[in-house]
Amino acid sequence: MRIDIITVLPELLKSPFEASILKRAIDAGLVEVHFHNLRDYTSDNYKSIDDTQFGGGAGMVMMVEPIDKCISALKAERNYDEVIYMTPDGETLKQGIANQISLKENIIILCGHYKGVDQRVRDHFITREISIGDYVLSGGELGAAVLCDAVIRLIPGVLGNETSALTDSFQDGLLAPPIYTKPREYKGWKVPELLFGGNLPEIEKWREEQAYLRTKERRPDLLDEN
Amino acid sequence: MRIDIITVLPELLKSPFEASILKRAIDAGLVEVHFHNLRDYTSDNYKSIDDTQFGGGAGMVMMVEPIDKCISALKAERNYDEVIYMTPDGETLKQGIANQISLKENIIILCGHYKGVDQRVRDHFITREISIGDYVLSGGELGAAVLCDAVIRLIPGVLGNETSALTDSFQDGLLAPPIYTKPREYKGWKVPELLFGGNLPEIEKWREEQAYLRTKERRPDLLDEN
Repeated sequence: MRIDIITVLPELLKSPFEASILKRAIDAGLVEVHFHNLRDYTSDNYKSIDDTQFGGGAGMVMMVEPIDKCISALKAERNYDEVIYMTPDGETLKQGIANQISLKENIIILCGHYKGVDQRVRDHFITREISIGDYVLSGGELGAAVLCDAVIRLIPGVLGNETSALTDSFQDGLLAPPIYTKPREYKGWKVPELLFGGNLPEIEKWREEQAYLRTKERRPDLLDEN
Repeated sequence: MRIDIITVLPELLKSPFEASILKRAIDAGLVEVHFHNLRDYTSDNYKSIDDTQFGGGAGMVMMVEPIDKCISALKAERNYDEVIYMTPDGETLKQGIANQISLKENIIILCGHYKGVDQRVRDHFITREISIGDYVLSGGELGAAVLCDAVIRLIPGVLGNETSALTDSFQDGLLAPPIYTKPREYKGWKVPELLFGGNLPEIEKWREEQAYLRTKERRPDLLDEN
């Protein structure tokens, strides 16, 4: 899989891709991630990528032309399955969407910044608009990092243990059950006895019950979806 | 406002706080953000912070003791309004929660990693569990960065223009309307004429209509909430 990220702040995006699972996936050649600085696609001396809003109002708007040039240059090199724009009014990211996108070959992710991009970018270049949640961030960069993390960890071979991602929250429509590790007792707080017995079917049953109870208490909406 | 972030991967979190609005807010003294490496609170030579799950199963679990030590050391220095754990089964972050948290004085954010933390941490140290959305990430670090960004930009003085955050998506229960900037025409794609007229009441009315239409089309659930 190849991911091209278009941004005005490539430096903001650096560290999440230089540590942990994303770094390991990149080093192992399981995914390629390229950052493109939008200012490299400007035509004036000031490297302007934004301007004021038509009709007035607070906040700057990212212009069509540099974005067009950058996307067109990438498309001239290879085919892309999706050109994704990170925006709070896009389709809300869910595990199922991450699963879908993890099967793509080449994607472009455009990060909005300031007030967002000129509507004509969205009308003519974007194939999919994704929001990571109902809140506003100062730019699309963290959204892009979140989307990449959610997607890349699903690529076969990225997580050490193949079964690990499948027991995560949401993959079976339930939240994950409580988990415990050593010591058995800490400041008088004990791990449930049942987890020591080695009775695997009983442990499995307890985990399923706990996952169901937690989902019912915290997120009954997830149960309705099934 | 002071934010203390507890993590096993402080290096992953670096760049989002060294650029753009977060950096500006920190430089201006409007917020203090401190990273705490959980490995500095371990007691064995290997600096272990995790161990295998009781009862079996894939993935490592973060142990109680280093987290207890780190949180206790912080609490000995000052009072905290919240000790937040980033987890996919927490309360889903919404703009209203970001607004609330932006009014706090001191908060701790604990980033889970691997399979998550020992349940006893959640039972005894955490006051609030927050999820940034219904998807799984390789750790809580990106979630913490997202939460910080959503919160910090709301602190008065952080955004250049005080009105800017109030016209964002979600603040009035509606998505933002389309926005346009120069040029008036690009490759035959035109900006709506009405935005040039300088008729501010008419422009305002058009924007409200567009915001409503976009919300109705994309997120009718937001209209039901009002």
